[in-house]
Amino acid sequence: MVVNKGIRLLSTKAARFVPSGGVYPKGFVVGGIHCGVKKDGKSPDLAVLHNTFGQDANAAAVFTKNKFKAAPVQVLAATIKQKNGVGINSIIVNSGNANAVTGQKGMEDARAMAMVTDSVFGDHKDSTLVMSTGVIGNKLPIDNILSGIPKLELQVGDSHDHWLACANAICTTDTFPKLVSKSFEINGNTYTMAGVAKGAGMICPNMATLLGFFVTDAPVSAKALQQILSYATDRSFNSISVDGDMSTNDTIVAIANGAAGGDLIDNNSSCAESYFELQKEVTSFAQKLAQLVVRDGEGATKFITLKVKDALSYKDAKSIASSIANSSLFKTAMFGKDANWGRILCAIGYSDVSTAQSIIPDRTSVTFVPTDGLEPLPLLVDGEPESVDEARAAQILELEDLEIEIDLGTGGGQEAKFWTCDLSHEYVTINGDYRS
Amino acid sequence: MVVNKGIRLLSTKAARFVPSGGVYPKGFVVGGIHCGVKKDGKSPDLAVLHNTFGQDANAAAVFTKNKFKAAPVQVLAATIKQKNGVGINSIIVNSGNANAVTGQKGMEDARAMAMVTDSVFGDHKDSTLVMSTGVIGNKLPIDNILSGIPKLELQVGDSHDHWLACANAICTTDTFPKLVSKSFEINGNTYTMAGVAKGAGMICPNMATLLGFFVTDAPVSAKALQQILSYATDRSFNSISVDGDMSTNDTIVAIANGAAGGDLIDNNSSCAESYFELQKEVTSFAQKLAQLVVRDGEGATKFITLKVKDALSYKDAKSIASSIANSSLFKTAMFGKDANWGRILCAIGYSDVSTAQSIIPDRTSVTFVPTDGLEPLPLLVDGEPESVDEARAAQILELEDLEIEIDLGTGGGQEAKFWTCDLSHEYVTINGDYRS
Repeated sequence: MVVNKGIRLLSTKAARFVPSGGVYPKGFVVGGIHCGVKKDGKSPDLAVLHNTFGQDANAAAVFTKNKFKAAPVQVLAATIKQKNGVGINSIIVNSGNANAVTGQKGMEDARAMAMVTDSVFGDHKDSTLVMSTGVIGNKLPIDNILSGIPKLELQVGDSHDHWLACANAICTTDTFPKLVSKSFEINGNTYTMAGVAKGAGMICPNMATLLGFFVTDAPVSAKALQQILSYATDRSFNSISVDGDMSTNDTIVAIANGAAGGDLIDNNSSCAESYFELQKEVTSFAQKLAQLVVRDGEGATKFITLKVKDALSYKDAKSIASSIANSSLFKTAMFGKDANWGRILCAIGYSDVSTAQSIIPDRTSVTFVPTDGLEPLPLLVDGEPESVDEARAAQILELEDLEIEIDLGTGGGQEAKFWTCDLSHEYVTINGDYRS
Repeated sequence: MVVNKGIRLLSTKAARFVPSGGVYPKGFVVGGIHCGVKKDGKSPDLAVLHNTFGQDANAAAVFTKNKFKAAPVQVLAATIKQKNGVGINSIIVNSGNANAVTGQKGMEDARAMAMVTDSVFGDHKDSTLVMSTGVIGNKLPIDNILSGIPKLELQVGDSHDHWLACANAICTTDTFPKLVSKSFEINGNTYTMAGVAKGAGMICPNMATLLGFFVTDAPVSAKALQQILSYATDRSFNSISVDGDMSTNDTIVAIANGAAGGDLIDNNSSCAESYFELQKEVTSFAQKLAQLVVRDGEGATKFITLKVKDALSYKDAKSIASSIANSSLFKTAMFGKDANWGRILCAIGYSDVSTAQSIIPDRTSVTFVPTDGLEPLPLLVDGEPESVDEARAAQILELEDLEIEIDLGTGGGQEAKFWTCDLSHEYVTINGDYRS
C-alpha cells in the first residue's frame, strides 16, 4: 500500500469541487498570501475579508464550546459581544498555528492581529474578527503576521481569483480550498452570498479545527443574522459533527453589509417572510460549504449522507445520526465496502436519545438509498433483517456517494440529515504524524 | 506495509499475557470445544462453566445498555431477575454468532441453549445463563450448538488446560485467550477466583462485544455479589469503555458457590469488613481481566493508562479519562509516537463534566509518566506548555506501555483510571473487512 505520509497533495477532488468561477457579494474585498507562519516558506497562511461598502456591516458568530478556547476565539467572542454584532467590517485569519493554549501572550497576539487589521484597512477600533487554525500549543510567529497584514492589504480584490486565494490561505491539511457562492432573491431584490471554510480533520469531528465565514450584500440586522446563523449551523456545520464537541478553535462567522440595497431583514413580525426566506438560503448555503468539509475529510474515500426519519424530535433524529456518523466501526465498514448494518443498528442503540420511546427496535428500518438512482435496498425492515442481495449491496458500496436512511417508525415525523465520511488507512497515516 | 487482512494469528503477545498455570476455585468445571458455529470447522466456539459443589451458587450480572439488546442478553437478564441471582449454576457461551437482531427465533434459540444446558448437566430449570458473541443479524446454527452441549459435557474439568480451553472458546477476533486467576484471604479463609473474558474490538469501545465471567469459591450472597460486581465493573470493564455505550451483547457475570467454606459475605453491617475486602479483591481482579482486553485491542500497538487526578468527583474524572481514551486523534497520535498533548487537552475540554468548575484551564497539568521507571515528563503545567525535551518524549513514546497523568487541580481530590490502546492501520484493516 502506498501511503502519503503527512503530505496531502491537491487531489483530483480539487477539479470536481473547486468552482472555476462564482458570483460575489457587493462591497467586500478578500485576499490571501504567505506571510511566514507555515514553515515551507510559500504556502498561503494569511487571509483577510474586508467590507468596503462605506457603511458598517453586521456580524454574527458561532464557536466552539470546548473549555480550552483558543485565544482568537476568546478575542472574537469578546468583540462580537461588546459590539452586539454591529460595526464588524473585517476578518483576519492565519493558518499553520492555532494560537491555542498559548497563555497571556496568545491573547495579546490575537488582539494585535485585530488591531493592526483595523489600522491597515483604515477602519475604526474593534471592527475586526480574528481566527487561527493549525497546531496547538506553539506561540504565533506574530511579527511575520503583523508585517504580513499591510502586504495582504495590497493584494485584496473582489474577483474569483481573490476569493480562491482567500479560501486557500485558511487551509491546513485540506486537499482543496472550499469556496461556495450563489445569488438569491428576496422581495424582488437580488442578493449574493459567498463563503469559505476549512476542515479536513472532520472524520473525527470532535477535534477538527473547523473555520468558515460567509458574507452577503443583503441588509440584515445583527440580531436576525445571529439567529439565522445559529439555526443554519445546527443543520450544517454542526451536522457534520457532534453538537458541543468542537475543537479549541472552531468558528463560523457571517457578515452582512447591505450593499445590494432593499429593506432591512430583521427578526420581527413585519419581515417574517423575508427572514424565513433568508434562513432557508443561508441554511442550504451553509450545508453546501459544510459538505465540502466532509468531502475533504482526512483520508476520506466515501461521502455519506445519513437521513434519520420519523423521530420523536429533531434532537433525537440528530443524536442518532451523529452516533452512527461517529462510530469508527461503521466508518471502517464503509471504507471496506461492507454492508454491515449491524454496526449501524448498534450505534442507533447506544445513541443519546430523550425517551424510552425514542427507539423502538421492532419498528426500526435501515435502507441503502443508492446514489446511482436505482431502487433503494432495504437491509432491515421493522427490526427484521432482510435477506440482502449482497451483489447489489456491493455495487452500491462501490459508489463514492452513499446514502443511508433510518426510519424510526415512532410516528413523531421529525427528521435530521447528517454528513460524514469513512475511516481509512490514510486517516491513520495523516494523524499519526501530524506535527512533524 | 504488510497488513494481515482479516485474519489475526496468535501473536507473541500470547506468550506474554497467557498464563502457563493458575489456581482455580473449588467446585467448578469448565470446558470449550468446536461445535460448528465458526465456519473454519475447527476453532473452538462453545464454552461452558458449571458449578459442581452440590449446593446452588449465587450469580450477578451487568450487561449492555444498548437499546438493541441481543436475544441472549434479554434471556440472561430475565433469568437473573426471576431468580434474584440465586440458584444459577451454569454459563453457556457460543462465539462466532452474536444472536443479535434475530427476532423471535433468536429468543427461542437463546432459551433452548439454556434449557439444554440445564438438562445435560442434570440441573434444575433456569439455572443456566446464556451468552453469544460474533456477527450480528444472522440466525444461530442452533442444531450444531444444541448437539454440541452433550459433547462439551464430556470434556469439562477443573485443570488449567480446561480453563484455557474455555477461554479460547469464547474468542472471536481476539489474538489470545484471556484468563486470570488468583487466591486471596478473607477472615483467615483462603478463597480462589478465576475468570475469562473476550474483547478485541475495544479500541472502539462503543461497539465492541465484551463478554466475561469470573467465579469464586467464596460464600457471597446474591445481593452482595451484584453490588460488588457493579462497583468493580465501573472501575474495570466500564473504564475501558464509555459508560452506557456497550454493544448489543456485552455481558459480565460473576458466580460464587461457597465451596471453600467460611462465613457468608453479605451486604449488611455485620460483615462490612469482609464485604469491602472482597470488593477490593474483585475490583483488582476485574481490572486485570479488563486490561487484557485492552492489550488485545484490534490492531493495538500501545497499552495506555490514563490517570485523572484531583477532580471534583469520580464521575468527572472518569468522563475526562473516557473522552481522551475515545479520541481518534489522540489514539492515532499515540500510534504515531507523537507527543501531541494538544489533542489530550482538546479531549479534556469537550468532555462531559458536571460543572463549570470541573475544568479550570489554567490549573490543568498533563504529564507523561514513563513506564521505564525514570522521571516523569511534564508537558503542560497549570495550563502553560512546558518546553518539552522532544528526544526524551520520543524515548517514552517508543515504549509499549504508556501512562499519562492529568492533574485537574480543582482541589476536589477525586481520581479515576482508564485504560485504552492506540488506533493503527491494522484496526482499519480488521474492521474494514470483518464479515468476510
